[in-house]
Amino acid sequence: MKHYRDWSRMKKILIVGLGLIGGSYALGLTKKGYEVYAYNRNKDAIDYAIKNKIIISGTSEFTKDFVGQFDRIIFSLYPKVFVEYIKNYKDFIKDGAIISDVTGVKESIVYDTQAILNPRVEFIPAHPMAGKEVYGVKNADEKIFENANYIITPTDKNTDEGIAFATEIGEALGFRKISILSPEKHDEMIAFLSQLTHLIAVSLMTCKDSENLVNYTGDSFRDLTRIANINENMWTELFMMNKNALLKEMDSFINCITKLKDFIKGDEIDKIKNMMKLSTERRKYFNK
Amino acid sequence: MKHYRDWSRMKKILIVGLGLIGGSYALGLTKKGYEVYAYNRNKDAIDYAIKNKIIISGTSEFTKDFVGQFDRIIFSLYPKVFVEYIKNYKDFIKDGAIISDVTGVKESIVYDTQAILNPRVEFIPAHPMAGKEVYGVKNADEKIFENANYIITPTDKNTDEGIAFATEIGEALGFRKISILSPEKHDEMIAFLSQLTHLIAVSLMTCKDSENLVNYTGDSFRDLTRIANINENMWTELFMMNKNALLKEMDSFINCITKLKDFIKGDEIDKIKNMMKLSTERRKYFNK
Repeated sequence: MKHYRDWSRMKKILIVGLGLIGGSYALGLTKKGYEVYAYNRNKDAIDYAIKNKIIISGTSEFTKDFVGQFDRIIFSLYPKVFVEYIKNYKDFIKDGAIISDVTGVKESIVYDTQAILNPRVEFIPAHPMAGKEVYGVKNADEKIFENANYIITPTDKNTDEGIAFATEIGEALGFRKISILSPEKHDEMIAFLSQLTHLIAVSLMTCKDSENLVNYTGDSFRDLTRIANINENMWTELFMMNKNALLKEMDSFINCITKLKDFIKGDEIDKIKNMMKLSTERRKYFNK
Repeated sequence: MKHYRDWSRMKKILIVGLGLIGGSYALGLTKKGYEVYAYNRNKDAIDYAIKNKIIISGTSEFTKDFVGQFDRIIFSLYPKVFVEYIKNYKDFIKDGAIISDVTGVKESIVYDTQAILNPRVEFIPAHPMAGKEVYGVKNADEKIFENANYIITPTDKNTDEGIAFATEIGEALGFRKISILSPEKHDEMIAFLSQLTHLIAVSLMTCKDSENLVNYTGDSFRDLTRIANINENMWTELFMMNKNALLKEMDSFINCITKLKDFIKGDEIDKIKNMMKLSTERRKYFNK
């Protein structure tokens, strides 16, 4: 264990990007006694966050003088913007700093980011699987992490200290569960559990002019389409950055529902029932 | 308005089939002051219902003497069993009686049933869009109707008196909304809102061995697969009896998600975003 940094420096943290997630990180960490600073392109968010004691101070100018002060930085940006910031401003980051992120896809960003960073800066990737259908620091709410998963996806370039930092952040924010997965396993899991489900909801919502059906809608349809209310810019980026894993899961789902359709068409009652029995059986594992 | 029957006879009702729905009807109607009687193939359910004051009396023998006493009967049976009972026992039903049902598909049963019944018996079809993932009269609970829709699907053979009876039952049971639809429109709506959503959940639950993913599962996946816990016997009947409408909705959904897959494959970002914008727009109508 290295002890060359004192506790107070560890507790000082910079959040880059004060949106819903960055803002909720800032709020949660401030409440846990961290000294939280922020950068945000738009100054209104910074002013709001200072006024509401979400951060100590912040700026809308991304300069070496400002960024270079921090030993701990969390980038809370859209995936492509994150990659751009690292590419353009990697030299702003202090030697010895540990940085993390909140990006929802990993393989396509983790290895490149680690490769282009100064070798004396450690990037430990993490994904808070949380959110809600509103935007911006004004909706910041650290409670969104309470029932959520937090996944750390280290590579062989990461150190115990880096993993400990990501773990500490996940614990401070009160995530229900903190896990470690490889970037590849993370992306496969996300493709199936999150991206595919959003695409199913979007398809269901767009495949039929359903406005006239609102009056007859029960909970099942509402449950399946809640996530059809979707931020198209962020999700399109996430889909495209996880394209191969996602296409694989989409193919497998489409094959499965097409098989079911063919069984129904061909009156293959037993085969339909067998799929339902398997479905009921598997669903049990997902009861809370 | 006809007044040849007195109020007390109107309030006497026979429920045929004391499962979850029949039992919940019996309980709800008893609480509203109806004299509720029941037939059930298995006598245990009758004994339980009498003991728990869900019904006044009942039998496990379907005889003309018993059935012939009632001016109002509601059949709460699986679709195929309902059709069989009508076929085999139609002469048990008293002249002038009004009967109803709870069947989840309509076109394939309504016209045939009306055609084979004694012309002096009126069948007014109705569908309570309610349920839960448990079975039997022991789980009877009239509160399952509170937030649910109740759809009456009359044909030109039905009278105002018949429709008034079905409406009265819907009101007595406290349904959130009572609607009137043609059997065909009902089936199209059910194919899309209910049957397709169950098949999507089953497909999602069976297309990947997902047990190892439980730890990472968030609310979206749980919401989409809640109904993957499914009674395969009842639902298979419902699917097969609504085959044409259902296959049409399945085709349309599969085309839609396949289109989305092709857009992702071909990096057609704008087209993906447009589908998501439409999805977000449409979902607004379904906010409660």
